[in-house]
Amino acid sequence: MKQQLLVDMDGVLADVYCQLAKFEFEHLGITRTKEQLEESLELDAFTHGHEYVRTKGFFRTAPVMEGSQEGLKYLNEKYKVLIVSSATEFPDSLSEKLYWLNEHFPFITWEQMIFCGKKEPVMGDIMLDDHFKNLDFFKGEKTVLFTQPHNIRQDSGRHIRANGWVDVIRIL
Amino acid sequence: MKQQLLVDMDGVLADVYCQLAKFEFEHLGITRTKEQLEESLELDAFTHGHEYVRTKGFFRTAPVMEGSQEGLKYLNEKYKVLIVSSATEFPDSLSEKLYWLNEHFPFITWEQMIFCGKKEPVMGDIMLDDHFKNLDFFKGEKTVLFTQPHNIRQDSGRHIRANGWVDVIRIL
Repeated sequence: MKQQLLVDMDGVLADVYCQLAKFEFEHLGITRTKEQLEESLELDAFTHGHEYVRTKGFFRTAPVMEGSQEGLKYLNEKYKVLIVSSATEFPDSLSEKLYWLNEHFPFITWEQMIFCGKKEPVMGDIMLDDHFKNLDFFKGEKTVLFTQPHNIRQDSGRHIRANGWVDVIRIL
Repeated sequence: MKQQLLVDMDGVLADVYCQLAKFEFEHLGITRTKEQLEESLELDAFTHGHEYVRTKGFFRTAPVMEGSQEGLKYLNEKYKVLIVSSATEFPDSLSEKLYWLNEHFPFITWEQMIFCGKKEPVMGDIMLDDHFKNLDFFKGEKTVLFTQPHNIRQDSGRHIRANGWVDVIRIL
């Protein structure tokens, strides 16, 4: 029987940093250095980050993470994939995220989507995520930390670190 | 430690039959008998049911189930409540359902909401739902079947039947 694999959206399938940087450049005309981005969580790394994610269209027009389309297609054949996204904090993001998945990952069906506040109650065997707050509380057997600026300086601990989608495929 | 209670939305908190009947009356000018409603699942009981639920505003303007506001408030103090709603089949329903919860159940926080395709991967101790397709696959210890026309003629099986919210409070 196939194992259940929980895949995160923001910072794994959707390139949230790229979208935040785009919003900030259009708004303030500035560009952050790599070092600046590595100092804090994604929304705190941008002066108006918490405002940008509440803007209509933010999630609907987010760029796709490099390699994620081919990568997820491969994983979707090998595992029982569930897309699990923290979304209920931002009411408009919910429908936007669903339409975004339909556009960029058409092989993912509505039965495979979960939009939640906290991921702790969602069961699975493997979790692929960029946040310790999700990976640390996962009760399954394997956890993969997807490298993003906010976690790059941290020790991956008991999680396996994946530096991009090529690495994800190698690990999973 | 408080037990985790999963509470369904449609047919438990939201009176979907009432909303479908309202849409049909406005559309076709007809009213169904109780017996007609008991013959099939909610969407099939109305000629254009599958169309109505895809109409913008259907979930946002759904009537609140009688007694559910006081009832859920009570349960929310006694248990760790999670609202778990099958929603991803209807993309626009997601944000509508979240705003609807904020309006009618303001004590439920975004951390307590899960919008999914299938409920099977969601863990909990107790489930309150009107559908056997959810209750039958629940791995927790107690399951409560909320009476709705589509399940009224069926044997509740291993689930405890609740005829309305007064009954829910008596059971839980």
